[in-house]
Amino acid sequence: MAAEEHDPPRTFGDELNRRVGRRRSQLVLGLDPDPARLWSSLEPGEAALIDHCERVIAAVGPACVAVKPQLARFELYGAPGRAALGRVVQAAHEAGLLVIADGKRGDIDVTARAYAQSLYGGADGLAGLGADLATVNPLMGPEAVEPFVAQARKVAAGVLVLVRTSNPGAAMVQDAELAGGGAVWETLAGLVDRLGSGSAGESGLDDVGAVVGATAPAQLERARELMPRAVILLPGIGAQGGRIEDVAPAFRPGRAAGLVTASRSIVDAHAERGGTPEEAARGAAETLRETAWELSSAVLGES
Amino acid sequence: MAAEEHDPPRTFGDELNRRVGRRRSQLVLGLDPDPARLWSSLEPGEAALIDHCERVIAAVGPACVAVKPQLARFELYGAPGRAALGRVVQAAHEAGLLVIADGKRGDIDVTARAYAQSLYGGADGLAGLGADLATVNPLMGPEAVEPFVAQARKVAAGVLVLVRTSNPGAAMVQDAELAGGGAVWETLAGLVDRLGSGSAGESGLDDVGAVVGATAPAQLERARELMPRAVILLPGIGAQGGRIEDVAPAFRPGRAAGLVTASRSIVDAHAERGGTPEEAARGAAETLRETAWELSSAVLGES
Repeated sequence: MAAEEHDPPRTFGDELNRRVGRRRSQLVLGLDPDPARLWSSLEPGEAALIDHCERVIAAVGPACVAVKPQLARFELYGAPGRAALGRVVQAAHEAGLLVIADGKRGDIDVTARAYAQSLYGGADGLAGLGADLATVNPLMGPEAVEPFVAQARKVAAGVLVLVRTSNPGAAMVQDAELAGGGAVWETLAGLVDRLGSGSAGESGLDDVGAVVGATAPAQLERARELMPRAVILLPGIGAQGGRIEDVAPAFRPGRAAGLVTASRSIVDAHAERGGTPEEAARGAAETLRETAWELSSAVLGES
Repeated sequence: MAAEEHDPPRTFGDELNRRVGRRRSQLVLGLDPDPARLWSSLEPGEAALIDHCERVIAAVGPACVAVKPQLARFELYGAPGRAALGRVVQAAHEAGLLVIADGKRGDIDVTARAYAQSLYGGADGLAGLGADLATVNPLMGPEAVEPFVAQARKVAAGVLVLVRTSNPGAAMVQDAELAGGGAVWETLAGLVDRLGSGSAGESGLDDVGAVVGATAPAQLERARELMPRAVILLPGIGAQGGRIEDVAPAFRPGRAAGLVTASRSIVDAHAERGGTPEEAARGAAETLRETAWELSSAVLGES
């Protein structure tokens, strides 16, 4: 991510920490545009996607530290969808938001490097998307994560490894108990900790973080033990049944050590709250931002 | 995949079986274009990607039943890269080849459906890429695979689930031994078998298949036991050390039950064989095609 002029270079963790502190927000706005529920009166298509995301960012952006576009929703529109995604990333950056590219890519070697370059940038002569963070799937092992870490470090970006996702079916593989003790997801947590080691600055936060669902509080406690310096992205609050009160362990290393992500519960808030989509979303986002901030204050004994 | 006029509708497995029989080939050409080693004199960029892939398809396509574009290599070029990928898919279909979209997507719910629609087509008003098969990452569990299966069935396409990949680091998660017995990859094989059940036609082959590296012969034998009706895509022959002689178990259910994929060992064959890239690639592909065909003949006791 771009540092401001005259600032000394920062580690990824320190820059994230500074942004979270300035905006008093750990909230990540999921951009997961459902073609049937867009905030746009344009004809369905990529222009409506851009219009929708720009409107949502304008309404809710001030309560957030980052946006998390769901790549699948853009890829559905082919090449124009990829162009639209680029426009949305630009709009987010202009609104002072970080961008988490949620593509959950998981491949190895030159393929993983190509994905990383495509998302972070850094390939010769190719701009890339300019994401500040990207989600990565570790099923193929360390080789699936390492090329992302290497590429992210070239541009002071970060990596978020799927460790324990928030969906029920995640239990099949991620919760499988190992003959040697522990579960598969704990092995993944160990990988995150190892690959991030040595990357923290003053904030104490590494550039390799994890996705851990807010739907399993006991696992989150254990995840924090196994990954004491990792930024943890917390999906599953709201629509998937997770409660913000349960994510306290995420904030133990600091304000920016837990990022709370929500999508439908913000963008579709008017269905429950009434009012315009903008007002309802702003209200829902502000409530979630404030609750997370106060929770982190309580955990850290700060105000 | 499009059936020919007047043909009755076929199951995915029967159509694949027919194609493999007609072309006497189980060979899948990996399209994994390295920007530094293109068969094209055009300036680097998406036009050179298209030119390269079209040349490779023209030279090697007749020895193959399918191509497998590596999506990362195209995504690196942003929106024009996605357009180039569409052109390459079209060129492959015009050459009578099936297309395996190798994106290893792995997400759930509406996101997984959007990926599947993006690759297979089938979304209202959106063409999609038109792939005949797509690789899928099952780390997030059954919910990551089921939407692909549902979408594939709408267009008589197939799914290839990562079960045991060919890279050494795959051992970390996929080979992890479970407390209840068996390894993680065997759980994934069970998922493939369950989701494919009931989809086979005369050929006996399901529409849910698996990726199992050719680098671990003992695992391939066991994989075939666990997935008796699955089409198995076999990466890792050549550059990664796998040997064609070791993939016999893949062919036990039939000619089309094993698909042998190779990329660099064909496209870069001139570095070892000499001659023009076209001649060398054609020679390497023809040798591999013939070896696989003869091996399947021996396994099946046919000629």
